[in-house]
Amino acid sequence: MTWVTVDKVAQYEDQNVELRGWIANRRSSGKIRFLHLRDGHGVIQCVVMANQVSPEAFELSDRVPYESSVIVRGTVKKEPRSPLGYEISANEVRLIAEAADYPISKKDHGVGFLMDNRHLWIRSSKQNALLKLRSVVTNAARSFFDELGFVSVEAPVLTPTACEGTTSLFEVAYFDRSAYLTQSGQLYGEAAAMALGQICVYGPTFRAEKSKTRRHLTEFWMIEPEMAFWELPETIDLAEKMICRIVEAALEKCSTQLKTLERDTASLEKAVPPFPRITYSRAVEILKEKGVEFNWGDDFGADEEAVLSQSFDKPVFVTHYPADIKAFYMKREPQNPKLALAVDLLAPEGYGEIIGGGQREDSLEMLEHRIAEHGLPREPLEWYLDLRRYGSVPHAGFGLGIERAVTWIAGIHHVRETIAFPRLMDRLYP
Amino acid sequence: MTWVTVDKVAQYEDQNVELRGWIANRRSSGKIRFLHLRDGHGVIQCVVMANQVSPEAFELSDRVPYESSVIVRGTVKKEPRSPLGYEISANEVRLIAEAADYPISKKDHGVGFLMDNRHLWIRSSKQNALLKLRSVVTNAARSFFDELGFVSVEAPVLTPTACEGTTSLFEVAYFDRSAYLTQSGQLYGEAAAMALGQICVYGPTFRAEKSKTRRHLTEFWMIEPEMAFWELPETIDLAEKMICRIVEAALEKCSTQLKTLERDTASLEKAVPPFPRITYSRAVEILKEKGVEFNWGDDFGADEEAVLSQSFDKPVFVTHYPADIKAFYMKREPQNPKLALAVDLLAPEGYGEIIGGGQREDSLEMLEHRIAEHGLPREPLEWYLDLRRYGSVPHAGFGLGIERAVTWIAGIHHVRETIAFPRLMDRLYP
Repeated sequence: MTWVTVDKVAQYEDQNVELRGWIANRRSSGKIRFLHLRDGHGVIQCVVMANQVSPEAFELSDRVPYESSVIVRGTVKKEPRSPLGYEISANEVRLIAEAADYPISKKDHGVGFLMDNRHLWIRSSKQNALLKLRSVVTNAARSFFDELGFVSVEAPVLTPTACEGTTSLFEVAYFDRSAYLTQSGQLYGEAAAMALGQICVYGPTFRAEKSKTRRHLTEFWMIEPEMAFWELPETIDLAEKMICRIVEAALEKCSTQLKTLERDTASLEKAVPPFPRITYSRAVEILKEKGVEFNWGDDFGADEEAVLSQSFDKPVFVTHYPADIKAFYMKREPQNPKLALAVDLLAPEGYGEIIGGGQREDSLEMLEHRIAEHGLPREPLEWYLDLRRYGSVPHAGFGLGIERAVTWIAGIHHVRETIAFPRLMDRLYP
Repeated sequence: MTWVTVDKVAQYEDQNVELRGWIANRRSSGKIRFLHLRDGHGVIQCVVMANQVSPEAFELSDRVPYESSVIVRGTVKKEPRSPLGYEISANEVRLIAEAADYPISKKDHGVGFLMDNRHLWIRSSKQNALLKLRSVVTNAARSFFDELGFVSVEAPVLTPTACEGTTSLFEVAYFDRSAYLTQSGQLYGEAAAMALGQICVYGPTFRAEKSKTRRHLTEFWMIEPEMAFWELPETIDLAEKMICRIVEAALEKCSTQLKTLERDTASLEKAVPPFPRITYSRAVEILKEKGVEFNWGDDFGADEEAVLSQSFDKPVFVTHYPADIKAFYMKREPQNPKLALAVDLLAPEGYGEIIGGGQREDSLEMLEHRIAEHGLPREPLEWYLDLRRYGSVPHAGFGLGIERAVTWIAGIHHVRETIAFPRLMDRLYP
């Protein structure tokens, strides 16, 4: 008999199939048991009637705890009342392994308990939907860059030094010395772009921040394209195209998941080009118009970003930030060197920053000056300065935070549910 | 004027185009300068004739050091003698930035020097070819699993404990406690497979091994599929299909790169199904037939793997290893519990192991017993035991080492050249 996954049952209407999965839920009605079987590809109702299966099969359908693993054989039947459109009329139910009493029930558990049981919590429909959405988002982003001819490059996780300052670094005992977990693949991405033209780094990045906000993880993933010979405007266009591609993929491939998440997709459907582009100075004006007290020159916090991102019904690009609040490697606006050729993308509905990037300083002299100004150690950055010594070119790039992007697309509150095993200040298990 | 990358010039025959890149090489002949322009997408010869360009352009074509960045404008001309089939008849050469004297020349540098300058070394044609090949291999593997409906999952890098013993772990200061860098995403992949059916982990893994062999890095990338309800035989078939897909992609998309690497592709073309499948015991016989002294029960070292992998002209699967030399989570062969349902794939031409995997122990009792037997701490593995408590199912998976696979496909000697910024015991910079 053909083993079929739940997402494929429509191809087997009125045929006998075998399903393999776990009992996610159960209802009883007289001599009928309705088993909800989940197999990782979906959930389907299996109708087990006492007169259609063996007494043993009926008994176990009635008895075994949730999350017991079973094999169900039966006929695929059209069922318009099912969200899936189909159900299984079972003629055989076989137990693979009976579960112990499952710790996660329908009742409200605290997040701490659920996170302690994250390895089980990911089986529940909402968490499952989030992980599939994440997979679709990351694969869409990777394919987008692959099709454009960008070379996929892995930046090192173990680095000899900090990219953007020495605070919030995780230190690793590396044989007889210290190493640090990378905070961004960007500097290495720049070196790779000088070798390969246009590249894309995908990998985990780390911040030892003691902040416990809904937007921070200590370990998070970024996709970081870097392009030799590109300047700010075309980099913004690229970010726009990438976001549209990701959102399209989510709408197209994750309609079931977005329904499970009760996501208002109308808001996502608005994410079509062109996204508004405003300067930092204009953003400050908007904040003031909305009655937010804010001084030009300060950095936006989560609150300001939320106000700005609620002012537009699409993602909005904010450019030309004060150079003083941006990293040392940012190129200055030639007409006004107080400004950096930086760009952030704020997701709508209050979600705030999901992309940060800009054009990189390509003058050796200016970069040396900035390193001194920022009080950064010079020696570990010598290799980075070499990129300006040997054929410097205009170049630019950005980083998309995967968890923040998925949080927005899913319409959920906290980034911690968008990764299989989140790491936070107080969360290292499982 | 259209900015065109070198890989696309064929589409612009006899048209005027703009190229942007770096001077990789130069020849002179009377009033002609032949500039080899590299732009990360390829290398093209630009013919600069004194009577076709300005005196300044001719002068700089003659003078500026290698790796200076330039914009060249000219006409794309068919040129059968060029490896590319085309060259540029230049009418303009503009300097972007003059390079300092480039440290890497055609002369033989030691590997230490080249690795100190890895950020520049990756610009050279062989290193460039290796990084592109790696990108094609990783993207082919990811697409392969994506198309099969496997969900991409990221396993955590920061873990509370070791997966396969406590030696060779990198320790991280994680706020007020210790964390360890992951050695494998597998255990987390198993949890994800119970939630999502069939999944694929891609990410960096770490071993603090003090070995300085040509097959070891301290930071390396793995692709690790894990499949609920799969057993050993179909897992072997999957690995075979994946390898074939990767090799096909390399042959199809990297013909130029394989030529640069002087790879004998005839050997790669032999990697078509079916790959031979032999047991460990048969492998031991082969070793003895070849005069290698070896005791049944010992693990194969690099030398034995090399002999075995030279005995076949295709990758060869070795199965049913003695359980004692395999990890605690390996399921035993029901007919002979001294053997593990393990599989390694040895690449041909002496390259040895590139895949390790097998069927996982799915009995709670057996797994508890193994953990005790291996002297592993029980508490940090409680969550892993939960996977057997709540609906245990047969499951299997494997891990492909990206660097080892690329080393074989490229036909090179040492894994360290297959990643942009390799990390070895004595190598953490750049």
